[in-house]
Amino acid sequence: MKKIAVLTSGGDAPGMNAAIRAVVRRGIFKQLELTGIKHGYEGLMAGDFIPLELGSVGDIIQRGGTILQTARSEAFKTEEGQRQALGRLRENGIEGLVVIGGDGSFRGAQKLVQLGFPTVGIPGTIDNDIACTDFTLGFDTAVNTVIDAIDKIRDTATSHERTYVIEVMGRHAGDIALWSGVAGGAESVLIPEKEANIDDITARLLQGHKRGKKHSIIVVAEGVANGQTIGELIREKTGFETRVTVLGHIQRGGSPSAFDRMLGSRMGAKAVDLLVEGGAGVMVGMQNNQMVAVPFDQALSQPHSLPLALYELGISLSI
Amino acid sequence: MKKIAVLTSGGDAPGMNAAIRAVVRRGIFKQLELTGIKHGYEGLMAGDFIPLELGSVGDIIQRGGTILQTARSEAFKTEEGQRQALGRLRENGIEGLVVIGGDGSFRGAQKLVQLGFPTVGIPGTIDNDIACTDFTLGFDTAVNTVIDAIDKIRDTATSHERTYVIEVMGRHAGDIALWSGVAGGAESVLIPEKEANIDDITARLLQGHKRGKKHSIIVVAEGVANGQTIGELIREKTGFETRVTVLGHIQRGGSPSAFDRMLGSRMGAKAVDLLVEGGAGVMVGMQNNQMVAVPFDQALSQPHSLPLALYELGISLSI
Amino acid sequence: MKKIAVLTSGGDAPGMNAAIRAVVRRGIFKQLELTGIKHGYEGLMAGDFIPLELGSVGDIIQRGGTILQTARSEAFKTEEGQRQALGRLRENGIEGLVVIGGDGSFRGAQKLVQLGFPTVGIPGTIDNDIACTDFTLGFDTAVNTVIDAIDKIRDTATSHERTYVIEVMGRHAGDIALWSGVAGGAESVLIPEKEANIDDITARLLQGHKRGKKHSIIVVAEGVANGQTIGELIREKTGFETRVTVLGHIQRGGSPSAFDRMLGSRMGAKAVDLLVEGGAGVMVGMQNNQMVAVPFDQALSQPHSLPLALYELGISLSI
Amino acid sequence: MKKIAVLTSGGDAPGMNAAIRAVVRRGIFKQLELTGIKHGYEGLMAGDFIPLELGSVGDIIQRGGTILQTARSEAFKTEEGQRQALGRLRENGIEGLVVIGGDGSFRGAQKLVQLGFPTVGIPGTIDNDIACTDFTLGFDTAVNTVIDAIDKIRDTATSHERTYVIEVMGRHAGDIALWSGVAGGAESVLIPEKEANIDDITARLLQGHKRGKKHSIIVVAEGVANGQTIGELIREKTGFETRVTVLGHIQRGGSPSAFDRMLGSRMGAKAVDLLVEGGAGVMVGMQNNQMVAVPFDQALSQPHSLPLALYELGISLSI
Repeated sequence: MKKIAVLTSGGDAPGMNAAIRAVVRRGIFKQLELTGIKHGYEGLMAGDFIPLELGSVGDIIQRGGTILQTARSEAFKTEEGQRQALGRLRENGIEGLVVIGGDGSFRGAQKLVQLGFPTVGIPGTIDNDIACTDFTLGFDTAVNTVIDAIDKIRDTATSHERTYVIEVMGRHAGDIALWSGVAGGAESVLIPEKEANIDDITARLLQGHKRGKKHSIIVVAEGVANGQTIGELIREKTGFETRVTVLGHIQRGGSPSAFDRMLGSRMGAKAVDLLVEGGAGVMVGMQNNQMVAVPFDQALSQPHSLPLALYELGISLSI
Repeated sequence: MKKIAVLTSGGDAPGMNAAIRAVVRRGIFKQLELTGIKHGYEGLMAGDFIPLELGSVGDIIQRGGTILQTARSEAFKTEEGQRQALGRLRENGIEGLVVIGGDGSFRGAQKLVQLGFPTVGIPGTIDNDIACTDFTLGFDTAVNTVIDAIDKIRDTATSHERTYVIEVMGRHAGDIALWSGVAGGAESVLIPEKEANIDDITARLLQGHKRGKKHSIIVVAEGVANGQTIGELIREKTGFETRVTVLGHIQRGGSPSAFDRMLGSRMGAKAVDLLVEGGAGVMVGMQNNQMVAVPFDQALSQPHSLPLALYELGISLSI
Repeated sequence: MKKIAVLTSGGDAPGMNAAIRAVVRRGIFKQLELTGIKHGYEGLMAGDFIPLELGSVGDIIQRGGTILQTARSEAFKTEEGQRQALGRLRENGIEGLVVIGGDGSFRGAQKLVQLGFPTVGIPGTIDNDIACTDFTLGFDTAVNTVIDAIDKIRDTATSHERTYVIEVMGRHAGDIALWSGVAGGAESVLIPEKEANIDDITARLLQGHKRGKKHSIIVVAEGVANGQTIGELIREKTGFETRVTVLGHIQRGGSPSAFDRMLGSRMGAKAVDLLVEGGAGVMVGMQNNQMVAVPFDQALSQPHSLPLALYELGISLSI
Repeated sequence: MKKIAVLTSGGDAPGMNAAIRAVVRRGIFKQLELTGIKHGYEGLMAGDFIPLELGSVGDIIQRGGTILQTARSEAFKTEEGQRQALGRLRENGIEGLVVIGGDGSFRGAQKLVQLGFPTVGIPGTIDNDIACTDFTLGFDTAVNTVIDAIDKIRDTATSHERTYVIEVMGRHAGDIALWSGVAGGAESVLIPEKEANIDDITARLLQGHKRGKKHSIIVVAEGVANGQTIGELIREKTGFETRVTVLGHIQRGGSPSAFDRMLGSRMGAKAVDLLVEGGAGVMVGMQNNQMVAVPFDQALSQPHSLPLALYELGISLSI
């Protein structure tokens, strides 16, 4: 193998730049030539390629977003699109590809593998919703962003009998809500994996109130309901004033945490090593602090599961 | 004068603790005894008083919120409430009062002055909506919180043709929106002081888009419209995807900035100096970097005016 | 078991408050009475005890330092001191103890166990220098603090041919230096576990310089040499200007990261569960994301080992 | 005037990029063509010029450092160097120049003015050591960086009888030390403008200690002494343990604060307006929140004076 390429796809996540840097530097360290593909699969089909040198990835490890930019592509879901992409890779002498993205991106990568093109995936998404890896790239940073918001709200929450509702990302996975809720000391956390019982929540609020608690913080994953709706329900049922914060895309940005920079660096280097060793059709995962190769089939067929023990822990600590 | 008290009232603001610390320490430095009143005017009427020593205000200059807590009080708006408060002050041997809060709080303070009780105000509110002072306590921190959010959104905004709408605080004053919009490099800023023309905004968006701009950030003061509404209007008129963030009470919290700690320290010390010198019925203001005494009448009768030159500056820099 | 106590000992670490909170809340959740011991073993011998309620640990999960304060104690190293401590525990009806600290603190805890008192340890130290746990409490936050400093230095480093040397904590363990160096994108990292070869380092600097690199960042663990010394050596050997930063105790402070809050919460709850179940003489460790009980003997007899693969990774990524 | 250029010179400062952006955008808004000069006067003499478009300065307002890079130049101090520079400007059709830097940079700018070339200066330096402007660009960010460090140290300082010494930048001006000391709640501040009396400092330490204060923070401007020396002096005279932090170049970096972004935006726009209106040989200053033009002669001949009232304030608040 003499030349490989790297792209980012789907929603961006902090740490993607650290992974790109690692792919490039490890590649060059292993005597490979490196190509960057811009705008994900769209750029792959369009041949939007740039050469990447050591210096191209200097000063990016600390940056949010992705220097290669990202996109979602409908065209690449067709076989025609995939064959076009393959042609672009071949005509540029590229022999291996690293795809950084979420499960949708891996389904795309799988198609290339099926067409005979060596591809390795890196799970880059803030949602932590991919199976067979303990953490996805960007999750730790997103949770830190949310707890910073919770901390600020707690500062101001000391003197009013109010309930603060914070809506966070997570359509299908409650990981961000759960981690930030427990680490932020929230009174209740609503996640898609656990049926929300609004009566339980209000009972806990009223009980805390009776004990002298003046304020409460509720974290809601967007996949459960929007924050406004939950705020109104609580107001109706308890009579407490509620205030709603919708963090939105703030959660995707920011300089990556140490954890995500290290994770991106390790995953990027491992992806190159796998390609060089002839591995393909696999995602790099972190299992028990080790980098492992997980076949796409396996990663995509298993459901991501959130550790419900942490949910129980949260309940017992927010009494 | 031998004994004075301090309270915080209305919405809390970062820097209030720095001001409390300065009142206490400057007071003790001037041989006074110090009393803290909890929960604003509610606590004043209820006699919810605590003694404050040098050590009571150690390690608080960096904290958001207010260690004295704050509240809004309907009862204090009645003469009965005011007389009750006066009684509490007199029976505790308190001879002067510092009130940290916004214009509503100052109206309360004015009542005490009219009843013959020496009171001095410190403008503590993130909204910067008080006349006769260049800045209010908490404003600088709030703007820094908002630009931090804008920065994070910009990280993620590089690859989609999307418009990001950020709703910030400011019911009647557009200062937070204007400062954070200009300092955050937003494409458009909607403030109550300037009639919003959605067609101008979309024209700017479309023009930027034509020039190759992939993303745009719009900052909206809550007094103009809610973020969701603006997001939908823009989507309808441009066809661009929009994403909305509602920062909410995050803007009230956080460790105060250096500017707000210095401002709180200076205002707190000045308030004590004024009381000792027999000044009363005044608000401490900052004008041209100097601490000045502004009669409540004057501060409350003049409208706060936002420097529209900054608005024009923003327009010329976000072309 | 009806009543247990908790203390923090040795150097403080971010996340200790999260652990204290978890011990208290989990204890109360399990119907126990809770006592806080101030100033570590000094306070234990002196009987400096306070009752801890649900509300005592409200609003502390986000705070650096430890609300129980900490100390090092020479007196507790004597059998007399230990027997005095035991007496204090018994006379207060305390039946179990959680000690949050480093290896020195665990040696103390072991003495109590040998005297028949049920004690469980939580590894709280920024140095990550304890065996049998993947991470110690406070390490993640400390590394994030260091990379924030490195990021700031990189901002200013773009235009001068200078070498920036950053001295970080770590007398015997290079974990902080290694993680922050790799995550910060440093050119070289000097750790106690790996003999420093100043000629290699300068060779790398000169090679980078030849390739057009204008600046370099070197991270040095204090256990290797002080930053000033390294800076002068490099200046002598390369002729480059050098600038030195000594981060010092900044690394111990700051609001704990999400990771450390979660780790503290999990370890605190686990410690209580272990005491209740009759476990004692063990440290709570995190192995492969699971909470485990490790006998003190084992944790204290094994050397902590730093993953040298990360060192090699760093080398290959900073070419 | 049809074409102007901008350069940054001397030590970099947060907010320089905001100023560059404002020069470029305001220039284009006024129908000018814009040129960026890299590496300060060195690049000016070498003709290291790049065209700057609207998009060239997108996404930089939040970045520390300077995209134009900076340098110090000995060659430009000679008349030969200055004439060479002038030739470069003329041969590129440039008719006006904005220089962002400190007093050394302005002395260079003055030379160009004397040779008949319209030049306007923007005071960009973290030291706040320039006369005729209330604040220099970068100062607010630097002070916020220092208080963040002080906050972290205070977290960890609660339980040991220790004195923490923090050495900050400021060879001739004590502004950073004074502001960060007062805003950080330091016990003592040592600045070049005020003779340091180590006996006063130790007397304050001992007095605080007697009152029960367990820890103290001393901020020292590098122009007074290095932190290590002060630390040792204090240890000798009080017997207290001391710990030293040397912040170094961390103070130059980081994302600019809202204040510095606004200041940079206003100064950049004003500089262009002045050039267009035929003004030259002036520095843009901020006086009483207004942008003003100050002749270089005046700005360079007057000493910068630090408001000693703030020093007295600090003393009265840290009793």
